[in-house]
Amino acid sequence: MARLYHVPLSPFCRKVRLVLAEKKIDVELIEERYWEADPDFMRRNPAGKVPILKMNGRTMPDSMAICEYLEEKNPTPPLMPSSAEGRYEVRRLVAWFDDKFHQEVTTKLLYERVNKKLMKQGYPDSKNVKAGARAIKYHLDYMAWLLDHRRWLAGDAMSIADFAAAAHLSSLDYSSDVDWTRSDTVKDWYAKIKSRPAFRSILSDQVPGFPPSAHYNDLDF
Amino acid sequence: MARLYHVPLSPFCRKVRLVLAEKKIDVELIEERYWEADPDFMRRNPAGKVPILKMNGRTMPDSMAICEYLEEKNPTPPLMPSSAEGRYEVRRLVAWFDDKFHQEVTTKLLYERVNKKLMKQGYPDSKNVKAGARAIKYHLDYMAWLLDHRRWLAGDAMSIADFAAAAHLSSLDYSSDVDWTRSDTVKDWYAKIKSRPAFRSILSDQVPGFPPSAHYNDLDF
Repeated sequence: MARLYHVPLSPFCRKVRLVLAEKKIDVELIEERYWEADPDFMRRNPAGKVPILKMNGRTMPDSMAICEYLEEKNPTPPLMPSSAEGRYEVRRLVAWFDDKFHQEVTTKLLYERVNKKLMKQGYPDSKNVKAGARAIKYHLDYMAWLLDHRRWLAGDAMSIADFAAAAHLSSLDYSSDVDWTRSDTVKDWYAKIKSRPAFRSILSDQVPGFPPSAHYNDLDF
Repeated sequence: MARLYHVPLSPFCRKVRLVLAEKKIDVELIEERYWEADPDFMRRNPAGKVPILKMNGRTMPDSMAICEYLEEKNPTPPLMPSSAEGRYEVRRLVAWFDDKFHQEVTTKLLYERVNKKLMKQGYPDSKNVKAGARAIKYHLDYMAWLLDHRRWLAGDAMSIADFAAAAHLSSLDYSSDVDWTRSDTVKDWYAKIKSRPAFRSILSDQVPGFPPSAHYNDLDF
């Protein structure tokens, strides 16, 4: 069986978990407290990051490279459009969430509030938390704008771009950092993703010492 | 004709320039001093970054999404292998250079020494410069290890992974930040890439106020 080395609230791991689950690939999840720098882990992964997927005799780091590999090896159901233009848009948006949203929002809210405590790196910096809370508004508005023009974020079909976005938002929702009243459009989109069977494992995540927000695993939030 | 909005020493722009040139796609280069935040530019590109490629009536940000698009629309000459495993390896290495190498080396050397001055953001932080000078050694060693096992970085054929790496190293070479005596293997690899016609435009780059290192455009360095 495939193995995924992960941490529960990592958006990069969650994106891969969602793709694996949509493609009905069974996977054993192994929690990897990479910040404790187990020498074995560093040997498996010189980049020192999660996720790492072990599958088909290969050890693979890098979440987007993994997702593209899974899409190419298991094309059903498709999570990328068939046109070059459509695929460009999926990749652009995955990079948008994994680079820009991650930098402006996820590192400022989730990492300040949860990861710092988990990793024993001190207290949240309130300047960062404020900046993150401000930035997420613009990102939710941008998503609402996209979803006013399209059924899913990158076009008319659900794609890895939706999973990249949902991975970040679900981790932030765990710590109550998403204001779902800001846009009905975005809330409806998230409700659709959240109710998919592929999302179940993510909704049952529990981080010791950090209970999830009350509505975190409520499909009718 | 296609247009590329770029800055000369940006490794992300250089990777796209190399792919365009290998595929013999004519492009007009337009320098974009994005840090001066021209409102027109922000309209074209809400991510606020270069490169942006205008082509086939589309305005496209994100360097790797652009490269994948160019590869799909213009498959000759191929810059990605045909197997899913080979393509995974190219994508993993592009992410290695554009994330990890960029963070550990390029931001610490090039951005401290050149970009800060260009953007009027103060003086280089010597702690960063030292950390970057230390980190580049490990990266050169990793490249040498890969190249001892393969003809090119990601396998037996030249790929976008080679261009991602060469883009970072060429920008760092501009400011004399690469010690080519560290590995003959890496030096030979760079000499092969450097002598390609696709590299000419990059070797003729000039940044006002920052003359390139003496050997920068010397094919026999």
